Amino acid sequence: MGGDHGPPVAVAGAALGLADWRARNVRFLLHGDRAQIQAQLDRAPGLKAISEIRHTDLVIASDEKAARAMRRGKGTSLWNAIEAIRQGEAGAVVSAGNSGALVAVSMLILRMAAGLERPAMVANWPSVRGFTTVLDAGANVECDAERLVEFAVMGEAFHRCLHGATSPTVGLLNVGSEDQKGHEEVREAHKMLRAGGYNLDYRGFVEGDDISKGSVDVVVTDGFSGNIALKTAEGLARFIGGEISAAFRGSPIDMLGALIASRAFNKLRARLDPSALNGAPLLGLNGIVVKSHGSSDAKGFANAVRVAVDLAQSQYVADIQRHLEQLTVARAERLEGAPIQASAPPPENNG
Amino acid sequence: MGGDHGPPVAVAGAALGLADWRARNVRFLLHGDRAQIQAQLDRAPGLKAISEIRHTDLVIASDEKAARAMRRGKGTSLWNAIEAIRQGEAGAVVSAGNSGALVAVSMLILRMAAGLERPAMVANWPSVRGFTTVLDAGANVECDAERLVEFAVMGEAFHRCLHGATSPTVGLLNVGSEDQKGHEEVREAHKMLRAGGYNLDYRGFVEGDDISKGSVDVVVTDGFSGNIALKTAEGLARFIGGEISAAFRGSPIDMLGALIASRAFNKLRARLDPSALNGAPLLGLNGIVVKSHGSSDAKGFANAVRVAVDLAQSQYVADIQRHLEQLTVARAERLEGAPIQASAPPPENNG
Repeated sequence: MGGDHGPPVAVAGAALGLADWRARNVRFLLHGDRAQIQAQLDRAPGLKAISEIRHTDLVIASDEKAARAMRRGKGTSLWNAIEAIRQGEAGAVVSAGNSGALVAVSMLILRMAAGLERPAMVANWPSVRGFTTVLDAGANVECDAERLVEFAVMGEAFHRCLHGATSPTVGLLNVGSEDQKGHEEVREAHKMLRAGGYNLDYRGFVEGDDISKGSVDVVVTDGFSGNIALKTAEGLARFIGGEISAAFRGSPIDMLGALIASRAFNKLRARLDPSALNGAPLLGLNGIVVKSHGSSDAKGFANAVRVAVDLAQSQYVADIQRHLEQLTVARAERLEGAPIQASAPPPENNG
Repeated sequence: MGGDHGPPVAVAGAALGLADWRARNVRFLLHGDRAQIQAQLDRAPGLKAISEIRHTDLVIASDEKAARAMRRGKGTSLWNAIEAIRQGEAGAVVSAGNSGALVAVSMLILRMAAGLERPAMVANWPSVRGFTTVLDAGANVECDAERLVEFAVMGEAFHRCLHGATSPTVGLLNVGSEDQKGHEEVREAHKMLRAGGYNLDYRGFVEGDDISKGSVDVVVTDGFSGNIALKTAEGLARFIGGEISAAFRGSPIDMLGALIASRAFNKLRARLDPSALNGAPLLGLNGIVVKSHGSSDAKGFANAVRVAVDLAQSQYVADIQRHLEQLTVARAERLEGAPIQASAPPPENNG
């Protein structure tokens, strides 16, 4: 029921990947208003055959506060969809609804995996070398060093399972590559990751332009900077798309050139299509939750479903479990080896 | 002497704008190694006629710490160039050197304008509606609410003087548009700006994609997020440029189309050329300081010089002075009206 368009986009999106879902034994539970969903499902008989509607009148509004969603969300479509994971009825949930509520209700129902404090949202970013995994893309506005280290562990496991890389490289997003650059939290996380013990191929600080360059496979940052980087990139990509169209509409000669090269144009459009990047998993929960962009179209929603299916059918859940055990061991060792902290100065708040 | 290329790029860059400089009565003081500069200047007789070399053997290295540059930087090319502003010999300085040292030595020699605490670096960002002024682009890694308000005042004056807008609109960069979004500092700055008294057309929170959309004229953020947004955008623009070239090299037909539409291609390339955006002024100092990208080419350096000339010949210095007086009045009024703060909770450090 979520997102700007509700059931028309969600159902049409699920229907778009039908051949793939069939081959992979995927089945859908569709949570929300039966009449609205049924109307869409009647247009997609193939999807209907592998779907079941779970009716509810209740929805969480897009502007509902997360705290209220946690208190009053029981029985809504979002709540029921997540509850179905806990009950073992579903292997993953996809929602285009309220992000804050999705994070909060997922944490409440599924709980965090052992050793983790907060979930992180992942962005799949096209790069010169394939895809860069960027996290957190907006679930955590403020992050201390421990959170950034957790994101590194989660992001690396995610990248390995989703993209089949044997030993993904990890970088920490900063405003420069020298050790003294950046704020307290990022410098502290850098020290911890460099000290090792997490079984990661940590490559140090990276900068914004390294994301598209693919300098490392996994880029770790706080949810404030991550969200701003992502949305800025989305805006720029749209702007450049507009400039390309405008340039080739300039004169009949330009239009002729564009017509002759239309295959190249279509290839380019497909490569830069934001729908192909939609679907941001929330990592760190006991269960797979994927956020679809609120304004996504059916093609984008289909991609978010594909991300959920890929993740549910990968080794991710078992793999992350193994890595979290290492995280716990590394933490215990750090605490044992650390001097007493009572005389440490308080962290700086403002520079 | 600064940047990846030193005198060859700086001198060639200055020479590129010659006709313009002549028409506007610009003259250059070139600080650094006489022999190296002379060799470049001999190739540009027109520039030679309006330039004077100020020799020094000393330079600040690109990896020199800012604190060391402040203590030991006297007599270096960077130091002398800034000192020339204080002495009234120069109206603006352009440097492709060490950013941290440039900020620190500028603050030391020129001092901040009355009422301001820290300089901010401005980025000139192309948008659907022209240009968006984004600050801080990296001079301040951590910023409290007062700093963000100062950036709003400085950025608005800058945009007005450089782009001739009568009443530029101002937005605060955040991860959502609702009042409760974001961290402590950004929410507090939002409250202060909304309360008014700064003579700004403040439009509230904006998100990353609003920068390229041109939703507001001036986008205010801290130097960490600002630097990451900018570098991410640079990386993405380069990536898309590569994808465009690749798409049109695909087959002879695609290449023919590109050839026929070559005028459109060149127009597009010019519109997206990062050199045309080079030149980030450091606002808030008693004097005009412009940072050129360390890796910039001559065309980019010429653009940084143009930004410095535009700013030096605009009403900016007088205009910002008027606005800073308003800032001081608004602050005094806020303090008078404010309750005693002793019982206020400490700011949250981590979310």
